[in-house]
Amino acid sequence: MKNKKINLKRVIKKPFKTQQKVGKAPGTVTYLGLREDGENKISVTDYSGDFYETKVLENVEETFKFRDTEAISWINVQGLSNVEDIEKLGKYYNINPLVLEDLVNTNQRPKIDEYEDYIFCVLKMLYLDKEGQLVVEHMALILCEHAVLLFQEIEADVFDGVRERLANKFGRIRNRGADYLFFALIDSIIDQYFIVLEHLTDKIELLEEKVYNSPEQDVANSIQQIRKEVLGIRKNIFPVKEIASRLVKTEHRLIKEDTKLFLGDVLDHSIQIHETIEMLREMSMSLMEMYMSNVSNKMNEVMKVLTIMASIFIPLTFIAGIYGMNFEYMPELHHRNAYFIVLGIMFLIIIIMLIYFKRKKWL
Amino acid sequence: MKNKKINLKRVIKKPFKTQQKVGKAPGTVTYLGLREDGENKISVTDYSGDFYETKVLENVEETFKFRDTEAISWINVQGLSNVEDIEKLGKYYNINPLVLEDLVNTNQRPKIDEYEDYIFCVLKMLYLDKEGQLVVEHMALILCEHAVLLFQEIEADVFDGVRERLANKFGRIRNRGADYLFFALIDSIIDQYFIVLEHLTDKIELLEEKVYNSPEQDVANSIQQIRKEVLGIRKNIFPVKEIASRLVKTEHRLIKEDTKLFLGDVLDHSIQIHETIEMLREMSMSLMEMYMSNVSNKMNEVMKVLTIMASIFIPLTFIAGIYGMNFEYMPELHHRNAYFIVLGIMFLIIIIMLIYFKRKKWL
Amino acid sequence: MKNKKINLKRVIKKPFKTQQKVGKAPGTVTYLGLREDGENKISVTDYSGDFYETKVLENVEETFKFRDTEAISWINVQGLSNVEDIEKLGKYYNINPLVLEDLVNTNQRPKIDEYEDYIFCVLKMLYLDKEGQLVVEHMALILCEHAVLLFQEIEADVFDGVRERLANKFGRIRNRGADYLFFALIDSIIDQYFIVLEHLTDKIELLEEKVYNSPEQDVANSIQQIRKEVLGIRKNIFPVKEIASRLVKTEHRLIKEDTKLFLGDVLDHSIQIHETIEMLREMSMSLMEMYMSNVSNKMNEVMKVLTIMASIFIPLTFIAGIYGMNFEYMPELHHRNAYFIVLGIMFLIIIIMLIYFKRKKWL
Amino acid sequence: MKNKKINLKRVIKKPFKTQQKVGKAPGTVTYLGLREDGENKISVTDYSGDFYETKVLENVEETFKFRDTEAISWINVQGLSNVEDIEKLGKYYNINPLVLEDLVNTNQRPKIDEYEDYIFCVLKMLYLDKEGQLVVEHMALILCEHAVLLFQEIEADVFDGVRERLANKFGRIRNRGADYLFFALIDSIIDQYFIVLEHLTDKIELLEEKVYNSPEQDVANSIQQIRKEVLGIRKNIFPVKEIASRLVKTEHRLIKEDTKLFLGDVLDHSIQIHETIEMLREMSMSLMEMYMSNVSNKMNEVMKVLTIMASIFIPLTFIAGIYGMNFEYMPELHHRNAYFIVLGIMFLIIIIMLIYFKRKKWL
Amino acid sequence: MKNKKINLKRVIKKPFKTQQKVGKAPGTVTYLGLREDGENKISVTDYSGDFYETKVLENVEETFKFRDTEAISWINVQGLSNVEDIEKLGKYYNINPLVLEDLVNTNQRPKIDEYEDYIFCVLKMLYLDKEGQLVVEHMALILCEHAVLLFQEIEADVFDGVRERLANKFGRIRNRGADYLFFALIDSIIDQYFIVLEHLTDKIELLEEKVYNSPEQDVANSIQQIRKEVLGIRKNIFPVKEIASRLVKTEHRLIKEDTKLFLGDVLDHSIQIHETIEMLREMSMSLMEMYMSNVSNKMNEVMKVLTIMASIFIPLTFIAGIYGMNFEYMPELHHRNAYFIVLGIMFLIIIIMLIYFKRKKWL
Repeated sequence: MKNKKINLKRVIKKPFKTQQKVGKAPGTVTYLGLREDGENKISVTDYSGDFYETKVLENVEETFKFRDTEAISWINVQGLSNVEDIEKLGKYYNINPLVLEDLVNTNQRPKIDEYEDYIFCVLKMLYLDKEGQLVVEHMALILCEHAVLLFQEIEADVFDGVRERLANKFGRIRNRGADYLFFALIDSIIDQYFIVLEHLTDKIELLEEKVYNSPEQDVANSIQQIRKEVLGIRKNIFPVKEIASRLVKTEHRLIKEDTKLFLGDVLDHSIQIHETIEMLREMSMSLMEMYMSNVSNKMNEVMKVLTIMASIFIPLTFIAGIYGMNFEYMPELHHRNAYFIVLGIMFLIIIIMLIYFKRKKWL
Repeated sequence: MKNKKINLKRVIKKPFKTQQKVGKAPGTVTYLGLREDGENKISVTDYSGDFYETKVLENVEETFKFRDTEAISWINVQGLSNVEDIEKLGKYYNINPLVLEDLVNTNQRPKIDEYEDYIFCVLKMLYLDKEGQLVVEHMALILCEHAVLLFQEIEADVFDGVRERLANKFGRIRNRGADYLFFALIDSIIDQYFIVLEHLTDKIELLEEKVYNSPEQDVANSIQQIRKEVLGIRKNIFPVKEIASRLVKTEHRLIKEDTKLFLGDVLDHSIQIHETIEMLREMSMSLMEMYMSNVSNKMNEVMKVLTIMASIFIPLTFIAGIYGMNFEYMPELHHRNAYFIVLGIMFLIIIIMLIYFKRKKWL
Repeated sequence: MKNKKINLKRVIKKPFKTQQKVGKAPGTVTYLGLREDGENKISVTDYSGDFYETKVLENVEETFKFRDTEAISWINVQGLSNVEDIEKLGKYYNINPLVLEDLVNTNQRPKIDEYEDYIFCVLKMLYLDKEGQLVVEHMALILCEHAVLLFQEIEADVFDGVRERLANKFGRIRNRGADYLFFALIDSIIDQYFIVLEHLTDKIELLEEKVYNSPEQDVANSIQQIRKEVLGIRKNIFPVKEIASRLVKTEHRLIKEDTKLFLGDVLDHSIQIHETIEMLREMSMSLMEMYMSNVSNKMNEVMKVLTIMASIFIPLTFIAGIYGMNFEYMPELHHRNAYFIVLGIMFLIIIIMLIYFKRKKWL
Repeated sequence: MKNKKINLKRVIKKPFKTQQKVGKAPGTVTYLGLREDGENKISVTDYSGDFYETKVLENVEETFKFRDTEAISWINVQGLSNVEDIEKLGKYYNINPLVLEDLVNTNQRPKIDEYEDYIFCVLKMLYLDKEGQLVVEHMALILCEHAVLLFQEIEADVFDGVRERLANKFGRIRNRGADYLFFALIDSIIDQYFIVLEHLTDKIELLEEKVYNSPEQDVANSIQQIRKEVLGIRKNIFPVKEIASRLVKTEHRLIKEDTKLFLGDVLDHSIQIHETIEMLREMSMSLMEMYMSNVSNKMNEVMKVLTIMASIFIPLTFIAGIYGMNFEYMPELHHRNAYFIVLGIMFLIIIIMLIYFKRKKWL
Repeated sequence: MKNKKINLKRVIKKPFKTQQKVGKAPGTVTYLGLREDGENKISVTDYSGDFYETKVLENVEETFKFRDTEAISWINVQGLSNVEDIEKLGKYYNINPLVLEDLVNTNQRPKIDEYEDYIFCVLKMLYLDKEGQLVVEHMALILCEHAVLLFQEIEADVFDGVRERLANKFGRIRNRGADYLFFALIDSIIDQYFIVLEHLTDKIELLEEKVYNSPEQDVANSIQQIRKEVLGIRKNIFPVKEIASRLVKTEHRLIKEDTKLFLGDVLDHSIQIHETIEMLREMSMSLMEMYMSNVSNKMNEVMKVLTIMASIFIPLTFIAGIYGMNFEYMPELHHRNAYFIVLGIMFLIIIIMLIYFKRKKWL
């Protein structure tokens, strides 16, 4: 429970953690994330149709030589807290300082910005960690002439598929330009969203069954929790549709016409994700209604039991009370069969009451 | 009940069943449906104004000869799991691999894509099976110069009407081009939606009566179930309006001007379907409110019975209790008519109480 | 009650009654309404500035001669089930078969279609029959060069005003073209909507008073009924705004510039109707909330009565119970004034309780 | 209470009071208001930079001479039921009969229509009468070359400010054209809206306090009343935003460029009013929720009192009941201290119960 | 509590406090704020790349000399009630009187207006005062050729960061034009919004915990309070998005192309703020639902306790009542073990009841 809360806060609270930056000059490259260990790991995958090489680099200067080669380079920077390295890289690749600022700003909302020589894209990666907790990671991509620069906070295995296709020359990827690599990476990130949404759907369906069976208060809490998760995810995923549609319509020279066909697919997926989130939201809201109706029903049941018990026994107790009075002159008391007659009457009352409640369908 | 659940999952969950594809290269033609028996049944209906022939083909290669004839060919592929055949067909008809990928992807959202030589359209077919369960089937159409390629998971009888009109030369269909066949097939699919919606409306009206008569918890569950069904259907039907409006406005050379008049009709229908779904949604939501108000009313009734019983008999029991006390000096006890006077007072209290509750309209 | 239900079904269910047409070829003129007596009554009102004639025709062929005269003709076809006559008429006036199909399709949603030689418009007429039940009638108009063709299921008296103005040469109508007649007829239909909406408003205000006074379950049912009626009406009236705005903006040669001024009025009215329906919808929704709050309040009141009665008499009964015990050694029992002291204490408890409940404002 | 209701009806019902006009020819100038005394009061304020005159006219013909003078004339017609005068005035000023029709139609929705020689504007005036009741008045303005024609049902003092500025030559108004006067009048009407909205806000805040303190049923009724008032006001005020934005963007020759700066201010205000109404609506809705939560809480409190009383005394009464039984052989009865021991046990039970309820935080 | 209320009124009520202005001529510069001490404090910060000076001025005339120097001047006017000074300043800088009117109108909604020689912008500053109360301050900026005029009601420390960067020549600010200063000031104001929103989020999360633990009525009140705060903030912040997007797209000569890059950042932030407010709104609404569900649950619990107590002891009391009757002939009374048998039966009933309630999961 504890863990979940923390993770949720990552989703929900992130946008506000900008205080330490308030008042600083725009264009100041300041890391705002939580992983401040200061180490960046930089690796490069360099390839063309007949050539493939991948290695981890010692320092940021080693990336410089890849800028002007014809081969496509995927420069992968993991860890955003070592701001100096990123500034060096940015300077060499001629990236605007404002871009670098957004790049390390882990609170940056997903967006796409087109510059003359490169395209800058911020996305959020969503995945489930080993304990099934939802994690949101900041991710930034820069598409240059012959290179894609990828910045991420932690090493994620979402890109293993791309890496494999590159290594094994599977599919078209080795014969196409940097824009195709750019697309393939974005596609990998978006594919992950489907898994997260499926996970959420499963959670909602589980809750649904719980609501049917035992509407305890903690079910209500879980429903609210889910609603907040859906809200948080929506915030991080919704801009993606806009990004995809921008990429499909762009006239930027770095995006070739035939890559746009593939980007159309990304757009398709992001529309589907959009619709799914809205559906999840509606489902979670109707779940709450369901829950409330169930609580009311339980209450109804409780009240029926009380009413039946009270309606039967209170009148009987009253009758017993009458013959428990100590008046001197109560003729019935001295009648031989009076006791049994009264018992019979009481029994009759019980029968009548039961029939009445049966008719009312309370039994 | 079991069956329904399963079918519903088909409607709701399908969009997420993409895991097995996550990480694969785009353009890989992978079947994602549930019917993996591996057999495709390919049939061809070939016709022109004065010629009509229909037959089941042995293998996919037999379809090739129809490509270049002037007669209109309707090539019907049933079963999408034999991916190889579909790839062969696609190759021969010059279909982009990305299109083939979407074609066999049963999770693909309804859409329309215009290419230079063909138009590709994905739709969902909704129908009620023999047990009245709602089934969603993936369906893809490709309109070529002289042919319409129709891909479906199972053999559906929705197209029997078209087949009959072709065979019997009824209406215009035999004298018109492939685009008219394309329209006629889409029209048949959309006509089915009306039946499904009528079925849902009947279900909602049935529930409405149940809500009036006996607001049990399972009625609430049914209402939620209906809401989920409406949501699921909406997801599959909504994009159709967009598709129809695209077809009406398209400048594609394969769609002739006079066919657009008919497509305008399809657009009309899809707007009507759109409105109907929204109405069903609103009706199901107000049904839930109705239900809640009924539960509250029942509770009110229960509480009234309890309150009336308790309010009448608790004071009486108290009076009886007083004269059941064993004090030595209680002058009333020795009075001759005391017992009957007390009984009279009790009776009076009952009368007063009943009048009081009558006035309050609780009786 | 019965009647109402039936009429409501007309409003709600109609859109789905298309099954008998599913599978038929588009362009097949099939009557889908409920009045299948097979008889059409065709009448013609022919007029120009100084000429006026109105008569009922024997057969459809008699209408043909009016096509080419300069005088304006209003051809009124009542009864849509005799499809043959309508087809003949359509053929002679050069109407597209698809138009004829929509014309007799009583499920057709209101719309306007502009063709080269004529304008086709479908509207729904709403009126209250003699028992105050809401009736929805399908209506279709075709504006030609010198004629307006009006198709309706039953003879409605909505057009009496137009007829009178024509006969008595009142206003501009006799000196203007067919487009003005077209406008005048549409205007008459829309004027009826105001009456229906006023009727609904009265119904809602009546319900409002009922909700205040006696929130019985049948009030809730009536509210839901009204909401469904509003939904059903909305469906039939909403497209009218679109139609009016299309007419105002059209460049069609049959609509003259100075008639557009009047059509602007129609647009004004349809916007007002639109807003009114939305307001009625909101009012009916807040009525339901009102009702729920009233139910809760009534329950609160019931509970208070119960709680007051129980809280006062249960403790007293307990005290009485104590002195009803048969212990041998109970010193109080033998005290001379014990009985009266206990009675006094009981009276005191009642007083204290009453003050307590008074303070809590439960009394 | 009575009064309020009547006024509210004016707001809500007006749009439907068109029955008496249904069937009449368009362009028929028919007064639809409630003040049918038949008398119009016509006054004129004539001014230029160095000239100012104001007087009440005897008959409508006296206004004619002001049409062609260079000085700006503000012709004020109070009372709309004398339709003849208005028609004469309209004819002389060349106003379209359709405009005159809308002008006296008190149900006309606010709108603006631009004609070649004049601009026609309908607005609703909202103000609080002496008893604080909200009144809605129909108002129409016509901007001509050198004159503004203002039509209102009753003499309102909203324009006193304008009159004063004219008389005292305060501000720019005397040196500017008719369009500035037109703006100044509209501005005065809109300024009143702020007062009405402030009044509503105060009412809502008052209700809020009542909801906190004593959630009686009449509070719920008041909330609904407010919601209806907000709805009714919204209907009359919303179109104003559209009108203002039209005036700012118009190319009409009668509106000079430098007057548009001021009209921009009117637009600003109408946006602010728009936002405020939406906020009031949301506040009134959340007030209802607040109320419902308070009712539930009160019920909770009532139930707790009942449960505590019942839970403590019912078991005790049972114990007393046991020792009130008349069995011959009940050893305890003969024990010396039995009575006091039982009393002690009862006391103990009370203590335990109180602790239990304290723990549950019910006390 | 008191304080909060007052501050809240500032947020909510401000838009209506225009009564004192109703009826005045447009363009009259009237201060509408609450701080009417009449003193303005005017200070100037004058700088260029190699020059920096800041000082408090004695009177408004001292600002005049800065108008025509090449150095950038930031003229800061604190206190808006001394209208004369502002009018003098405006006159010298050629500002339109309508602009001056909006400038001192503390009720003015945030907006941007472009004039030929300057750009006028109204914003609201939100900050938390020392007691953590939310304060809304009116703020107006005018961007001229070489100067930015900033008007604020009180001295706020939000601009300390800008001042520092200017003084210490940190970042680009000293080498750029007045438009960059204009951007930097707006950026500072918007940065504050994040802090306010974070504060609100914290408050909502705190309330959430309270709702889980103890759903008292005052929690409901707090939720409503928060909702009103969110509404009030929304009103003041929402127009900012529009302002930012206008600034990004403007063609005004005073905004240079490279400053627009930075303004794009402001737009990014305002979109993020927009989304966050909507999220807060949704969270506060679902909090209310949460609360209601919790109240219902508590009620359920209360009812269960009552029902269990009553269901167990009422029947037992009835049995005791039977044997408390005084009939002469009651055979059981004389049986030796009757008393113990009855006690046993009673015990049995208790056991059965407990099992029953256990099964129903009420215990």
